[in-house]
Amino acid sequence: MVPVRESSDGPMLLDPPQGPLHVARARASFPWKELVLFWEGEDILRYKKTIFSALENDPLFAHRRGSWLSVEKYQELNFLRCKRIFEYDFLPMGDVLGSLPKVLALIECLGMYDWSLASKFFLHVLTFGFAIYSSGSEQHFRYLPKVLSMEIFGCFALTEVSHGSNTKGMRTTAHYDPTTQEFIIHSPDFEAAKFWVGNMGKTATHAVVFAQLYTPGGQCHGLHPFLVQIRDPKTLLPMPGVMVGDIGKKLGQNGLDNGFAMFHKVRIPRRDLLNRSGDVTPEGAYITHVKDAGQHFSKSLGSLAFGRVAIVAMSVVNLKLAVSIALRFSATRRQFGPTDGEEVPVLEYPMQQWRLLPYLAAAYALDHFSKSLFLDLGELQQGLLGKDQSVRQAELGREIHALSSAGKPLASWTAQRGIQECREACGGHGYLAMNRLGNLRDDNDPNCTYEGDNNVLLQQTSNYLLGLLAHRDQGGACIQSPLKTVDFLDAYPDILGRRFEGSSPEDLLDSSVPLAAYEWLVCYLLRESYQRLNQEKRSGKSDFEARNNCQVYHCRPLALAFLELTVVRRFHEHAHQPGVPPPLRAVLRRLSALYAVWSLSQHTALLYRGGYLSGERAGKAMESAVLALCAQLKDDAVALVDVIAPPDFILDSPIGRADGELYKNLWTAVLQGSKVLERASWWSEFAVNKPVIGSLKSKL
Amino acid sequence: MVPVRESSDGPMLLDPPQGPLHVARARASFPWKELVLFWEGEDILRYKKTIFSALENDPLFAHRRGSWLSVEKYQELNFLRCKRIFEYDFLPMGDVLGSLPKVLALIECLGMYDWSLASKFFLHVLTFGFAIYSSGSEQHFRYLPKVLSMEIFGCFALTEVSHGSNTKGMRTTAHYDPTTQEFIIHSPDFEAAKFWVGNMGKTATHAVVFAQLYTPGGQCHGLHPFLVQIRDPKTLLPMPGVMVGDIGKKLGQNGLDNGFAMFHKVRIPRRDLLNRSGDVTPEGAYITHVKDAGQHFSKSLGSLAFGRVAIVAMSVVNLKLAVSIALRFSATRRQFGPTDGEEVPVLEYPMQQWRLLPYLAAAYALDHFSKSLFLDLGELQQGLLGKDQSVRQAELGREIHALSSAGKPLASWTAQRGIQECREACGGHGYLAMNRLGNLRDDNDPNCTYEGDNNVLLQQTSNYLLGLLAHRDQGGACIQSPLKTVDFLDAYPDILGRRFEGSSPEDLLDSSVPLAAYEWLVCYLLRESYQRLNQEKRSGKSDFEARNNCQVYHCRPLALAFLELTVVRRFHEHAHQPGVPPPLRAVLRRLSALYAVWSLSQHTALLYRGGYLSGERAGKAMESAVLALCAQLKDDAVALVDVIAPPDFILDSPIGRADGELYKNLWTAVLQGSKVLERASWWSEFAVNKPVIGSLKSKL
Repeated sequence: MVPVRESSDGPMLLDPPQGPLHVARARASFPWKELVLFWEGEDILRYKKTIFSALENDPLFAHRRGSWLSVEKYQELNFLRCKRIFEYDFLPMGDVLGSLPKVLALIECLGMYDWSLASKFFLHVLTFGFAIYSSGSEQHFRYLPKVLSMEIFGCFALTEVSHGSNTKGMRTTAHYDPTTQEFIIHSPDFEAAKFWVGNMGKTATHAVVFAQLYTPGGQCHGLHPFLVQIRDPKTLLPMPGVMVGDIGKKLGQNGLDNGFAMFHKVRIPRRDLLNRSGDVTPEGAYITHVKDAGQHFSKSLGSLAFGRVAIVAMSVVNLKLAVSIALRFSATRRQFGPTDGEEVPVLEYPMQQWRLLPYLAAAYALDHFSKSLFLDLGELQQGLLGKDQSVRQAELGREIHALSSAGKPLASWTAQRGIQECREACGGHGYLAMNRLGNLRDDNDPNCTYEGDNNVLLQQTSNYLLGLLAHRDQGGACIQSPLKTVDFLDAYPDILGRRFEGSSPEDLLDSSVPLAAYEWLVCYLLRESYQRLNQEKRSGKSDFEARNNCQVYHCRPLALAFLELTVVRRFHEHAHQPGVPPPLRAVLRRLSALYAVWSLSQHTALLYRGGYLSGERAGKAMESAVLALCAQLKDDAVALVDVIAPPDFILDSPIGRADGELYKNLWTAVLQGSKVLERASWWSEFAVNKPVIGSLKSKL
Repeated sequence: MVPVRESSDGPMLLDPPQGPLHVARARASFPWKELVLFWEGEDILRYKKTIFSALENDPLFAHRRGSWLSVEKYQELNFLRCKRIFEYDFLPMGDVLGSLPKVLALIECLGMYDWSLASKFFLHVLTFGFAIYSSGSEQHFRYLPKVLSMEIFGCFALTEVSHGSNTKGMRTTAHYDPTTQEFIIHSPDFEAAKFWVGNMGKTATHAVVFAQLYTPGGQCHGLHPFLVQIRDPKTLLPMPGVMVGDIGKKLGQNGLDNGFAMFHKVRIPRRDLLNRSGDVTPEGAYITHVKDAGQHFSKSLGSLAFGRVAIVAMSVVNLKLAVSIALRFSATRRQFGPTDGEEVPVLEYPMQQWRLLPYLAAAYALDHFSKSLFLDLGELQQGLLGKDQSVRQAELGREIHALSSAGKPLASWTAQRGIQECREACGGHGYLAMNRLGNLRDDNDPNCTYEGDNNVLLQQTSNYLLGLLAHRDQGGACIQSPLKTVDFLDAYPDILGRRFEGSSPEDLLDSSVPLAAYEWLVCYLLRESYQRLNQEKRSGKSDFEARNNCQVYHCRPLALAFLELTVVRRFHEHAHQPGVPPPLRAVLRRLSALYAVWSLSQHTALLYRGGYLSGERAGKAMESAVLALCAQLKDDAVALVDVIAPPDFILDSPIGRADGELYKNLWTAVLQGSKVLERASWWSEFAVNKPVIGSLKSKL
């Protein structure tokens, strides 16, 4: 064990509380505190501790045990908490771009506490604020101090009730009137109402509204962002011509007020067009540096890239919380045993290990990927700020777009499935709301949908890969990218000739073997997709049809396999780098191998079909490797959870508390509930007003 | 179209309302009313209509639009509704055993409306009532009229907070005291509290409590059921010595009051032991006809079999509702198109078809399986009532046990995954609570857990199959079973020698080809499991260890594949029987083929590995077949939904209404919400009490 480091704030890493989990912890093969420091770094660790402590010590953030709030009360409380975050000012906004790891850590900390809070805060500060900053020009920057002081409250209004994925199909209009130098924002009908907009339901005073810009004469210049005041900051009442309201209860994140808005010829000053990429002169002429409407549109939506990368991180947070709860439960819950009298922790069963440990490995693998993607994004943003017009900067943009477009689906789906598995693995206790797995499932779910439906988004990644191959096919230069995620494709024909190189389980205990298999798999799917697409086109299908016909078994698995490969590769390299402290090497390599081979085993059918695998032994070796790695990792599971789990107050799950006093904690929480032992208020409906059986039969 | 049949109650089948879905309906290849009649039968159809109409016309069952109830209010309303069901007396209890299809239909109708209601009603009437009937003797039947008149209200108390799956591990005790001729029911500690018991939280006056029976002298005779009064029916206050309460909010079914109870030396009369299989004389001697404690226990838990079969049906209901909502949405929601101006319904995309149509086929396949299993169960129950002691009756019991033990996992998982896919396929609108997909996900979820955790339960089925093979290996008679689900295993070595017989997609457009593949697959997994298990034992592992080591990749997939085969076979036979009206043949065979090949394609890796498939073409043929069947079925999808969807009032989903007026219905529901357009009550917290940015920074 490394010594506990002291600071002026007390020890940074506390020993876990004594309790039944002590036995499981004692079996760990590595010093968990050393892994925390290696995994997070001291700065971030200290930063997170500050945030967690502030929340825990502030009564406003106390969990409302036993009083489940109405949506209205929850929204109020969530707003008050959001305001309190401004009072703490955890991350002065000047620092944001300079310290993306801290932004990531703040998202993680607030999200671990409650996604409604994190969403409300970041939608205002980052999504709204950054939209003004990146789409507007200097005349708009005067709004930014108002954002940061909460003088105004903002939302980002893109989607309409009848259009989500097809952003170009938005129908809100902005007609320019040169006589008053105003834009007239208008919703032609109910189907064009802005819908789903976070913070719009009850709070926002201002919205970045995307509308089709028309100049006098009736020419449409495509979708542009406008800054529209929707409520009076003094009263929170709607502005004239704005019908704005709350869309109602959602499956989760109900502390956030998602809203709708319809505009009835709302006039806004000409200068409130966010004019970074297109503008209108006072006389009504349209001017732009951007060549076509498509390019234009994609520029103004640049801030969505950040959103997708953030969702990768958000999904990872949910997966971390869920596996923490389920694994601590599994190490303390006993059921059955070799003899009648003796019961063993359910984590001792290979089945329970197989259900949960791959998701623990996935949490680590995706967490590392998420952090590395944030750093890549930082590089991209630096270039944008520095107005870097280089080819490399453009290529970096495309590569990050491809990585985030498949990263969001992979991370959100892995989390969603993992949470469900954790819920089931905790049995009935997982179905109790207080244990939080339902909350995680509900709050993670929209990650699969917003900022681009997962299945639609995957096409961005497959298009990127197909484009690289087409370029190569047309005699282009060799395939290289700034982040090197696609460089292996240059050896595409060679890779397709490779065959599986291990048929004993031992070969698979290191992630290099599945890594090689993934390279083959991506090349195979790329070739298949490319051929199929060209075949569809040759048979006379339109581009639209041809692409649609290649999604299910070609482009979709291609994009996912490419992302899995990237995640596997980055984690493999991280786990094998010389900087890994020796006591951590074995456990990190096992996690890396488990994620790799478990993930790869979803594709075994393709590996056989394409001839990469053959014979029974190879397939069996993969299964054995998964089980062997699970068995090797099960004694490390609780310590690995200690590394990624937040303090008990934040985790907020009786069955997931660090002391492992499963039943004591559960009972405490049950008995703290509201009116637990009280007779139902409606008792006389049973005791006095008895039904007359069949009395209403005649009405049937 | 068949003519609409008239009855005294008006037409039995109404034409769907006019609206945007009309176009989709007009494309159907078959007359939907004829399929309804074929699928349900006229009697059941009429019965369901009666129930649905009664609920729709009774204000007590009005949906509380816009007012989402607190758990307390929901429990009250649910109780009042349950009482009202007694007043309607839809199914006089004398009829229950004589009319299992009507029991099934009543479960389906009430569950389609609200599972909290269905659970509350059936836990009392069937689970509690039937436990008394089947575990008690004539002296206990005097309780039954009180059950049926709601004079008392019951619950079934088996699970404890620290024991669920391991039922034998329950620790509640019942010591017999001959001096007073009483049993003393006692919970030794908090971990032995009864927990999760439906109806126990607030309502039940009586409980069937499972406790370890001790006779004077201290001998334990294992778990026995006792009828224990827990509340006074006149006051609903707890009886002396009973600590009883509500376990708190769950992920779903919150109208049902799940509870806990601890007993502090509660004395009950000797005669309140439900003594069908074991009894105690007044003097304290234990008497039984049953040979050992294990057999004893399994007899007293006989009523659980009904529970598992019911859960298959419950899961199918949820899947039907979810696909109905998602497919009507997909046929009306338009997004993107071949040109900028023209958008197509999302159901036109192969991706959307692939995501949803297999689940539609699964709803049909599993619905048929569920009905047929209910009939099998009816046969078993008739035998039990007639005290049939034949070998066939015993074999039938084992076979139904095996089918229900894997049927529940297959149905509940298919529903859970299908609901999630439907939620995602409806995008943001699927995430709105009013559209009900969240409610379905939450209410279906416990089907994976109660009445036996899915993964644990699957072992029952694999044990059954392994037992058959062991018997055969030891030179036993040929393998035959009353329902013929395992008869094919008699040709086990021959089947293992078979190879895939079609490599063109056309071969797979009929379910006979996947059916043959499934037979091979089950034989392969059976051989692998058998060999692995014996190998583990030979290597010196205990039975306990050996079995645990064979679950993940052997026994678990074996049990699932066997059940899938059975579902595929039954649906195949149903779709191919001569009695199918000619206009329905094509569509039913397509559904059968789609379910079969889609389901089989999860196992492609094993088919390759074991040599049943070889070469690229075979695997590609399976993919092509899935897509081709989806394309063939997409124009029938809306009509197929009309066959299985309940009336709009029951479905209760704006985006799933039969008229297809997607946005009109959505807006109506949004605007009917509570305080939608109203300013937040806490507006001054934004407008007046401004935060001082960073004012709390010093506290960090």
